[in-house]
Amino acid sequence: MREFIPPTSRFIGLPDGFPMRRGGALYGARVAYETFGSLNTARDNAVLLLTGLSPDAHAASRPDDPTPGWWEAMVGPGKPVDTDLWHVICVNSLGSCKGSTGPASTDPRTGEPYRLSFPDLSIEDIADAAAHAVRALGISRLACVVGASMGAMSALALLARHPDLARTHISLSGAVHALPFSIAVRSLQREAIRSDPDWLQGRYEEEDGPRRGMLTARKLGMMTYRSAQEWDCRFGRSRISERRRAEQERFGLEFEVESYLDFHAQRFADRFDPNSYLYLSHAMDRFDLDDGAGGGPAGALARMRVERALVMGARSDILFPLSQQQEIAEGLSAGGAEVGFLPVDTPAGHDAFLVDTERFGPPVAKFLALVA
Amino acid sequence: MREFIPPTSRFIGLPDGFPMRRGGALYGARVAYETFGSLNTARDNAVLLLTGLSPDAHAASRPDDPTPGWWEAMVGPGKPVDTDLWHVICVNSLGSCKGSTGPASTDPRTGEPYRLSFPDLSIEDIADAAAHAVRALGISRLACVVGASMGAMSALALLARHPDLARTHISLSGAVHALPFSIAVRSLQREAIRSDPDWLQGRYEEEDGPRRGMLTARKLGMMTYRSAQEWDCRFGRSRISERRRAEQERFGLEFEVESYLDFHAQRFADRFDPNSYLYLSHAMDRFDLDDGAGGGPAGALARMRVERALVMGARSDILFPLSQQQEIAEGLSAGGAEVGFLPVDTPAGHDAFLVDTERFGPPVAKFLALVA
Repeated sequence: MREFIPPTSRFIGLPDGFPMRRGGALYGARVAYETFGSLNTARDNAVLLLTGLSPDAHAASRPDDPTPGWWEAMVGPGKPVDTDLWHVICVNSLGSCKGSTGPASTDPRTGEPYRLSFPDLSIEDIADAAAHAVRALGISRLACVVGASMGAMSALALLARHPDLARTHISLSGAVHALPFSIAVRSLQREAIRSDPDWLQGRYEEEDGPRRGMLTARKLGMMTYRSAQEWDCRFGRSRISERRRAEQERFGLEFEVESYLDFHAQRFADRFDPNSYLYLSHAMDRFDLDDGAGGGPAGALARMRVERALVMGARSDILFPLSQQQEIAEGLSAGGAEVGFLPVDTPAGHDAFLVDTERFGPPVAKFLALVA
Repeated sequence: MREFIPPTSRFIGLPDGFPMRRGGALYGARVAYETFGSLNTARDNAVLLLTGLSPDAHAASRPDDPTPGWWEAMVGPGKPVDTDLWHVICVNSLGSCKGSTGPASTDPRTGEPYRLSFPDLSIEDIADAAAHAVRALGISRLACVVGASMGAMSALALLARHPDLARTHISLSGAVHALPFSIAVRSLQREAIRSDPDWLQGRYEEEDGPRRGMLTARKLGMMTYRSAQEWDCRFGRSRISERRRAEQERFGLEFEVESYLDFHAQRFADRFDPNSYLYLSHAMDRFDLDDGAGGGPAGALARMRVERALVMGARSDILFPLSQQQEIAEGLSAGGAEVGFLPVDTPAGHDAFLVDTERFGPPVAKFLALVA
């Protein structure tokens, strides 16, 4: 099955019988991770990085793998998350197909890929697996847990379930739960994959997966990751070349924006397992921050024990709207944490933390300087 | 093939050889229409209503058909478009499957449905067919042409191509052309239909069409017709009943918002021809207001000969953003028309002209009172 593991990712085994929150348990499971920078002797300079739905653990280039990472502009020597100071641990989410155990992994009980026999996945499971990895690396307290997008949900789940694990928190374009528009987007993405006859109820073989469904799902995602204004500037009503248009099927590609979406969706479909996508996407819809002590997300936020937090989001984000970042900031603040809330004016939408690092970098650097 | 014609719609034949702007011609074609209210003896109280992509000509209930129309709250005796004063003509768009000739209609040359042999459709063709219908009804000058959504594009095309046909204009949630976000939405809707193996390159039979593709396309449409805020209030994170959830396939319906989208999409798929949808959707993407005299959309707007216009749009519209209505208002104003531009604060998004008639009704009524 499709697993796409960066060459420098390493692995930490999860204990046999690793319990999944919605039922079931994993055996012989593992978490993929990469580290950047050195752990100091006090073991107190570790920063955990939790990712969005699609990235692997390769957050940045390393001496042994110069391939740029998914957060290359943000992580490295002298960069906002400065690896001259910090020991950065990036964990690939449980359920992903990028090295951590997920639906594309082999089930040791059968020797076959799990596919849809993988247990129901929750954001809390992703958080628990990451917490296990941190402790297995000999770190009992993180200087900071940083999460972006789905990773911001995972970080909140980690703080709620492992209250002493992190001293501070950076939340980028996150939410305590999904609202109906985002649920509808992801539901439709899953529908596109499930409607593709090549999905075969998850029983596709590696080279015959539901590619058209994956393309539609990814294009729909990209439409909600950026902003209409950005596309107006970038593409306007430009058309692809007449030569390329002549090659298209009826109703095929015509405008540059269609070609751009298609190019990126093809790349994504080459590198992501459809079942894994379904599991992670579904986990995001179902996540609703709760520490079991009452009061819902606000109660859980107020009981978190971080000393300081930085909460950022983009005003142009339609998938995780800014009001959701404000909710996180206010909730943490109500619990006594010293919280900076920073709305960002950027046309880059939800993806701003990935692409508008000019605006996201300096506040992150400043926050981490205070933490040090 | 699927044609869904309201019982009270009537028809006007188009001249044989009706030329299509992008090539080809129609033979034995017709336009479906309904009228509401009486034409006065001076024949100067006619108001033409041009519709969005999906409606038929049944804009409102009539004595001989009490079925509510698609703009029931706006058209009728004493309503904002007051049929005690106005003779309202609602024309079903050429290319639709609601009575006017389109891909689902029988090609008289073959006795078979056109399907994809229907000529390329443009918004200008829709405008020309509507203009022909108006003149065939003995009206040489309309008191007003009213267009909403795609109908607002059709109305602009009509004003550019038939400059003396209308004295005034009401443009609701319209645009002089589509911007990349809207193109991407519609491109993805078409992709969902085209990816459905039951589409068969348009050669499906009536009962075996690309239903799953139509469902996905319509759901995606609905996500852009309303606003996230409206859904937050309406659905929040409510789930469907446990009983219904137990009946679902894996990754099936769970949240109320998913169930809502599914219900409405099923209804739509029952009543709309997939090929017709592809043609109309594509025509919207390609439309770019131009009267051939230079200066692009701004030039065409400035040369329009309407005396007065009312241009309205919703601030929450993501498909036809408010800046596009402003562009229409400024363009018409530059040509000397007396133009009212009215941005509407409503959570109802692009569909506000359909559902928030409390906010759209009074300005329309006030404008028409000035026209009378």
